[in-house]
Amino acid sequence: MENVILFLLESEKLKSVLRQTKPLGEDRFENSAEHSWQTTLAAMILLENAPENLDRLKILQMLLIHDIVEIDAGDVFVYDEQARVDAFEAETKAAERLFGMLDEDVGSRLLALWHEFEAAQTPEAKFAKACDRIMPVLQNLAGEGQSWTAHDIKRAKILLKNQPINDASPQLWALLKKQIEDADFIND
Amino acid sequence: MENVILFLLESEKLKSVLRQTKPLGEDRFENSAEHSWQTTLAAMILLENAPENLDRLKILQMLLIHDIVEIDAGDVFVYDEQARVDAFEAETKAAERLFGMLDEDVGSRLLALWHEFEAAQTPEAKFAKACDRIMPVLQNLAGEGQSWTAHDIKRAKILLKNQPINDASPQLWALLKKQIEDADFIND
Repeated sequence: MENVILFLLESEKLKSVLRQTKPLGEDRFENSAEHSWQTTLAAMILLENAPENLDRLKILQMLLIHDIVEIDAGDVFVYDEQARVDAFEAETKAAERLFGMLDEDVGSRLLALWHEFEAAQTPEAKFAKACDRIMPVLQNLAGEGQSWTAHDIKRAKILLKNQPINDASPQLWALLKKQIEDADFIND
Repeated sequence: MENVILFLLESEKLKSVLRQTKPLGEDRFENSAEHSWQTTLAAMILLENAPENLDRLKILQMLLIHDIVEIDAGDVFVYDEQARVDAFEAETKAAERLFGMLDEDVGSRLLALWHEFEAAQTPEAKFAKACDRIMPVLQNLAGEGQSWTAHDIKRAKILLKNQPINDASPQLWALLKKQIEDADFIND
């Protein structure tokens, strides 16, 4: 139980990892802890109308822990593809260190869950990965393309990188795709 | 699907609701979105060794939405008992407004889940309520009693208000109880 306490106190540090997006109405960057909450909430809502065979508990668990490696490895902007590749080794080490703080049986289950999410092969991992893309798109569409404009991300790249949202909800992706195509604040 | 988008954008506002506790190492108050993430994470970890008959998915779902009513009703300090009673009507209205943004079948399921959590009668609600108490205790014990000292909360009241942690983990509560009893920075 001491291990659980140390792990939860270590998780405090995710509140200090900053992302590229600002919460709507706030003049500060959001942190990965609040993003993790909102992403898991988005999954919970979309799962209300998702296929019955998906393991809902596993999807929520994946999303609760998916960003915790950023405590050691930092947040990498999703459009920076080279940095994403470079970060994977650091993130893997971080996962081993962080989940290794827990009792071995629990830690190895969480490490396997994190690897399953990263590999994005199972239906649950695909669904969770899709949910992880949703909020930044909603935030940018509602906020005049804030992080897209700041980093000069082009419309074609935005469409390509967010197309996996289709895996969680083709209906939602159809709506967002149209909004991305139509938005006059996105650079071509 | 437009309803889901509006609900998720509305959930942004929970990132602006501030609590009484500061994240360790940060000179700012934490917000209810990052707290919701960490509380749900704590539940996920403790559920690894909890009785098999608990509905784990329901517990995580409850904790993901438990504080969303604070978007309208604000955060109420857990030790301010009169304010907690006064807030319940505003929180109920907030739950009806917020979950009412979703399609009726989904919204009514979430509203029922929120009421089940608040009533704290089912094993799942008791477990979730217990998890909601854990992080502030860990944060205060690790942070020299920051919010306890700021509000002059006495040791006996801290013990009384956090005793429900026992519902999620008697082993964890035994540890925390001893630390609260022994801490020299807590006022008697």
